[in-house]
Amino acid sequence: MVQPTREDRFSFGLWTVGWPARDPFGDATRPALDPVESVHRLSDLGAYGVTFHDDDLIPFGSSDAERDRIVSRFRGALDETGLVVPMMTTNLFTHPVFKDGAFTSNDRAVRRFALRKVLRNLDLAAELGATTYVFWGGREGAEVDQAKDIRAALDRYREGIDLLAAYVKEQGYGIRFAIEPKPNEPRGDILLPTLGHALAFIAELEHGDIVGINPEVGHEQMAGLNYTSGIAQALWAGKLFHLDLNGQRGIKYDQDLVFGHGDLINAFSLVDLIENGAPGGGPAYDGPRHFDYKPLRTEDLDGVWASAAANMSTYLLLKERAAAFRADPEVAEALAVSGVAELGKPTLNPGETVADLRADDADFDADKAAERGYGFVRLAQLALEHLLGAR
Amino acid sequence: MVQPTREDRFSFGLWTVGWPARDPFGDATRPALDPVESVHRLSDLGAYGVTFHDDDLIPFGSSDAERDRIVSRFRGALDETGLVVPMMTTNLFTHPVFKDGAFTSNDRAVRRFALRKVLRNLDLAAELGATTYVFWGGREGAEVDQAKDIRAALDRYREGIDLLAAYVKEQGYGIRFAIEPKPNEPRGDILLPTLGHALAFIAELEHGDIVGINPEVGHEQMAGLNYTSGIAQALWAGKLFHLDLNGQRGIKYDQDLVFGHGDLINAFSLVDLIENGAPGGGPAYDGPRHFDYKPLRTEDLDGVWASAAANMSTYLLLKERAAAFRADPEVAEALAVSGVAELGKPTLNPGETVADLRADDADFDADKAAERGYGFVRLAQLALEHLLGAR
Amino acid sequence: MVQPTREDRFSFGLWTVGWPARDPFGDATRPALDPVESVHRLSDLGAYGVTFHDDDLIPFGSSDAERDRIVSRFRGALDETGLVVPMMTTNLFTHPVFKDGAFTSNDRAVRRFALRKVLRNLDLAAELGATTYVFWGGREGAEVDQAKDIRAALDRYREGIDLLAAYVKEQGYGIRFAIEPKPNEPRGDILLPTLGHALAFIAELEHGDIVGINPEVGHEQMAGLNYTSGIAQALWAGKLFHLDLNGQRGIKYDQDLVFGHGDLINAFSLVDLIENGAPGGGPAYDGPRHFDYKPLRTEDLDGVWASAAANMSTYLLLKERAAAFRADPEVAEALAVSGVAELGKPTLNPGETVADLRADDADFDADKAAERGYGFVRLAQLALEHLLGAR
Amino acid sequence: MVQPTREDRFSFGLWTVGWPARDPFGDATRPALDPVESVHRLSDLGAYGVTFHDDDLIPFGSSDAERDRIVSRFRGALDETGLVVPMMTTNLFTHPVFKDGAFTSNDRAVRRFALRKVLRNLDLAAELGATTYVFWGGREGAEVDQAKDIRAALDRYREGIDLLAAYVKEQGYGIRFAIEPKPNEPRGDILLPTLGHALAFIAELEHGDIVGINPEVGHEQMAGLNYTSGIAQALWAGKLFHLDLNGQRGIKYDQDLVFGHGDLINAFSLVDLIENGAPGGGPAYDGPRHFDYKPLRTEDLDGVWASAAANMSTYLLLKERAAAFRADPEVAEALAVSGVAELGKPTLNPGETVADLRADDADFDADKAAERGYGFVRLAQLALEHLLGAR
Repeated sequence: MVQPTREDRFSFGLWTVGWPARDPFGDATRPALDPVESVHRLSDLGAYGVTFHDDDLIPFGSSDAERDRIVSRFRGALDETGLVVPMMTTNLFTHPVFKDGAFTSNDRAVRRFALRKVLRNLDLAAELGATTYVFWGGREGAEVDQAKDIRAALDRYREGIDLLAAYVKEQGYGIRFAIEPKPNEPRGDILLPTLGHALAFIAELEHGDIVGINPEVGHEQMAGLNYTSGIAQALWAGKLFHLDLNGQRGIKYDQDLVFGHGDLINAFSLVDLIENGAPGGGPAYDGPRHFDYKPLRTEDLDGVWASAAANMSTYLLLKERAAAFRADPEVAEALAVSGVAELGKPTLNPGETVADLRADDADFDADKAAERGYGFVRLAQLALEHLLGAR
Repeated sequence: MVQPTREDRFSFGLWTVGWPARDPFGDATRPALDPVESVHRLSDLGAYGVTFHDDDLIPFGSSDAERDRIVSRFRGALDETGLVVPMMTTNLFTHPVFKDGAFTSNDRAVRRFALRKVLRNLDLAAELGATTYVFWGGREGAEVDQAKDIRAALDRYREGIDLLAAYVKEQGYGIRFAIEPKPNEPRGDILLPTLGHALAFIAELEHGDIVGINPEVGHEQMAGLNYTSGIAQALWAGKLFHLDLNGQRGIKYDQDLVFGHGDLINAFSLVDLIENGAPGGGPAYDGPRHFDYKPLRTEDLDGVWASAAANMSTYLLLKERAAAFRADPEVAEALAVSGVAELGKPTLNPGETVADLRADDADFDADKAAERGYGFVRLAQLALEHLLGAR
Repeated sequence: MVQPTREDRFSFGLWTVGWPARDPFGDATRPALDPVESVHRLSDLGAYGVTFHDDDLIPFGSSDAERDRIVSRFRGALDETGLVVPMMTTNLFTHPVFKDGAFTSNDRAVRRFALRKVLRNLDLAAELGATTYVFWGGREGAEVDQAKDIRAALDRYREGIDLLAAYVKEQGYGIRFAIEPKPNEPRGDILLPTLGHALAFIAELEHGDIVGINPEVGHEQMAGLNYTSGIAQALWAGKLFHLDLNGQRGIKYDQDLVFGHGDLINAFSLVDLIENGAPGGGPAYDGPRHFDYKPLRTEDLDGVWASAAANMSTYLLLKERAAAFRADPEVAEALAVSGVAELGKPTLNPGETVADLRADDADFDADKAAERGYGFVRLAQLALEHLLGAR
Repeated sequence: MVQPTREDRFSFGLWTVGWPARDPFGDATRPALDPVESVHRLSDLGAYGVTFHDDDLIPFGSSDAERDRIVSRFRGALDETGLVVPMMTTNLFTHPVFKDGAFTSNDRAVRRFALRKVLRNLDLAAELGATTYVFWGGREGAEVDQAKDIRAALDRYREGIDLLAAYVKEQGYGIRFAIEPKPNEPRGDILLPTLGHALAFIAELEHGDIVGINPEVGHEQMAGLNYTSGIAQALWAGKLFHLDLNGQRGIKYDQDLVFGHGDLINAFSLVDLIENGAPGGGPAYDGPRHFDYKPLRTEDLDGVWASAAANMSTYLLLKERAAAFRADPEVAEALAVSGVAELGKPTLNPGETVADLRADDADFDADKAAERGYGFVRLAQLALEHLLGAR
């Protein structure tokens, strides 16, 4: 198989390989992993970065001394391996205190505590050189419509993000924020359920300039949405600050499968988009390729590392096939027939007025124009055959 | 049953009661309705307004003379009944020419034609006094990821909306635009699939000040999203310019059932929100209560009018129950226990700094704070019992 | 509110009120409940029965002495309160040994262990007078298509159920089995994903005569299916041996909400069906009304008991409204117009042959017959208004 | 690309390539196709069979003379090309008379008409040598729970199927029936919504011996179910009489995409199953590989034929990759580690009693057994790499 290198910029959350595989109906099937071991193993496999929630590294409630010891040992592992920490985030969901949310808990004291928890970890993020800080508001939501004043909740969410963004600017941390949307689970309905809602929220922020999004494959697909299309809208808005790659097989609980082990066709178009940009050649994504997945609960530790490797192999295989797809003259011809690049041309001519446009009616015959065949199935089949390595 | 009045501001699309009940697997089961008859019948039932697509009233391809005759006759019905036309919209989806979209068709000539079609109908909308103009881009999308350059599509969508908005401003039409999102059907994936995506798009417009959204109950629920929460985010953003009420029973094809005949619990919280505002008493929605539904294909014309009436009756029943819910002292007490209004209070004290906040750590005991019971089930049950008319 | 009595035959799983509210993203928010306390509290609230998995009462791995002590103390509580144990079941999902299933684990030793675990608990079930024994095969499934030979799995499932059913018959336990389907979670895809699949499986058993199903509201709705329709098919097949009432808001993770706090309209038709039978008056369900729900994770113990009560109140309110619906002459008239009872009449006349039927062609005019309006929306609205207590 | 041959036994419905591309929101984009032309084109592309609804060939209401002329001309095309008609079916959904169903319409005269329509077409099926007759009850269902007595509906469904099956037997037609399930669309909820429900229904028939099922990829996936697993259950029950191959991208309206253009990973495991049987080598499916898809509405006639070819190419590519997967020694080893064949071994030893099983407790250590890693992710990745043509 293709071998990942640091240049591929693959990163993993400590909570992914380290997941002890406890689920809503079952106890843990694997021991906790030492973060330092994870760093070494991920490095050996070809990753370039690790990411984590505060509590993944430093258990909730650790003393300052313990904390220092843990951080120092972790830094040692980073130094030894050369792995970087491109992204960090906060655990605002595991402790029972967050059962009704963090920034939007109905309990003001909890909201205040949540902000303090983030502030502290932002300092660590800056210290470790992280440039992206993710906010997944998994507990910000409700099961009962009457239980949450959504507008007040959005006010508080904005208050929280703006306060933290202002802090980061003041400190000169060079960190950007990335909000991670999710429609539901663990709450019945979560605030900012899709990347669209998150982008809309960011537009209302005071410090929105340093706030973008971190969309996750499975989260968008849990709402039945096309992940590649969503990523394209995020790129269009200049807000794709980070992304979470994994797999999901349809609308159900959050599966966090290996990347590609869900909707493979969409994974292919995604890799094509973030590697190669728009069909016409627009800019692509240049951040880390971050995997946020869970090794199946049936796996032992060998399975954990095999699954970590599988994410990267799959990505690289898709990247190869996307390159071949782009280079294929038959594809280029099919794209032309389909008018894909034609959409890049403005609808109005330079300097054309509404009156000009309205006057340009004579030649257009709707019935005639309707006869055009767009050739989209051929395009889909060409993509599929490249995906299958059959061309 | 409660009787609707003009003050309730109920409006219906001509295409709703007039739907001939053709579906993907079956031929029409009802004759076409004369729009003039629909106006009279809706007026008799207590509606205050009718809305329509250009082609609902004036068949595609009508001559100018036919057009004038039709419009004049329609105006006559409005004058006789006193019904208004609060909203109008364009059919950019039925004719085969729009098979790959209108503003975002890969065919530039189609895009140009679509703009001309809207421009013409905007003039009529102004003439008829409509103040909202809806854009449902049902064909703007794709089934094949490679077939559509999403970023170019969003560029063209923006070009189109901005051009039309500029026109409306220049003409002084006093019309606002409302974009109606939908995740899929008739396209495999539609651009701006949820109200969040549409709000995010609007934030990128030049003339976004006169552009808001028109979310439909069923469309958001087709993505598994909570409609009431979405409406609240739209209100929060100041962008709820119009709404489409109907019913949907889960994630499946677009059902367009009678309002309330789907997720009744969510319909209740919705009516409560748009009638009464935030739990703490924030502003509510003050536009038309517009029904965009389809009478079941099994119904004859009597069933059509019975279903139109059912939409209004259900709304009024829910409104009554929402008022009783708000007035119930036990509800007030339960809301207080749940901390619903507490969320309205800023998380920081006036003038408080980050340093102040961080210093305020001593008293907070996370384990202790986690013991709080939020009483959300009680709240849900109180709402349910009011909904059932049992309190 | 209406007060439940023993005659209502409401039962609860110990695991429902006793759920400590640990979820995939969060730690427990409530202490474990003493089963004896649960028995007393449920009795006070008006329930008539409790149900449980072996491990709910007797921790996995308890010694025989502990086991005896626990069972004896539990029996004491039953005796004191008069509560019965109408149903019992086995926990074949929490312990890591079951991570690939129990009866269908790829590991034969695990399959053998699972059977022993059930056998032991069947003896206790007989001892405690349970007449229904539920099998929820939550771990019988896979995430990876290649990982499970589905036909072999169904062979093993059949082997297990038949062996246990034979045992129950041999022992003269008077227990019937009820299989509980679920489409997914905690496995990616679960064997026997819907009640249809379970009924089909039972038809292949040797001892299928004592095997029926235990469908759960939320489980069927997680596949987007109509629960009431499914229950009707189970009744039709004579296989509705038990049922699990709760609430679910659409296709997403398993919510286990309070009964009625999900799809309320479907909950209403369900209660109508199981209380009143077919519209024409066919037989109804006469087993326990069993709640398999989870008190929200935001609730403290007061909320737990309030939520338990809410299940029963809601059921009783729906029962009242269903009775009124059935008694309403306008409903009777609407049902007649809709031809609901007409469907009860055989399509062929008594003694009619195919030739007779084919000859009876002369009078039938398809276009004419197509004009009939079925009045289904009126029926839906009548049901809705009864549900809202508005008639 | 690989070229299909008659030995591949690919068949297509006339209604697939012949779909004029009218959808719920748009008019037809393509002209009607002459069935005779379709026969020739499909033959040229390598198909071996065509299938059709009565009305696809003979317009509803044709005179006997017209009918004879049409059938005779169609037979001519079959003779010329050598194409066979392996399957036929009835259109019981397009004409408005079927708006409330056919066998289960609340209107008895409609039910009688439906039976006559099928009887007539069964005679033609026998005449044309079809050996499978499909029943898709797309209109058998309801949108309103109160509108349909489900048990009466199932009685009528059984009455209809049994009457027709008896007829086929009496006539010695050599035809078997195959019921095609679907959860919804065009009805809100359809009877026999999944293949499980259909299998369970068949178990209640008098003439169930000649009745099996015809599951469609997209229909099962519209309920979020794993198609390959369902097919395996159908094979296990000996009831996979026919199948409908196509593509669907998640839970939404019925897409009828080209086979493989939806959930590609599941399409791969499906082809592997029906070509190669159980992992251990059990029997596979030996009926026609039937495509029930719709060419996208954006396509012209060239696109229609390209899409027909795409179905077959994709199938053959997946078949090649499945063969390579089976032949790969690393896969064999991985399957062994995962215990896939181990599941084929009965759980009890030959002649073992319950007492023997219970006695065999001493050696089993649950915690120890729980340590086993099943290696499922490795298996998934091996499958994926074969699918991608990367091994």
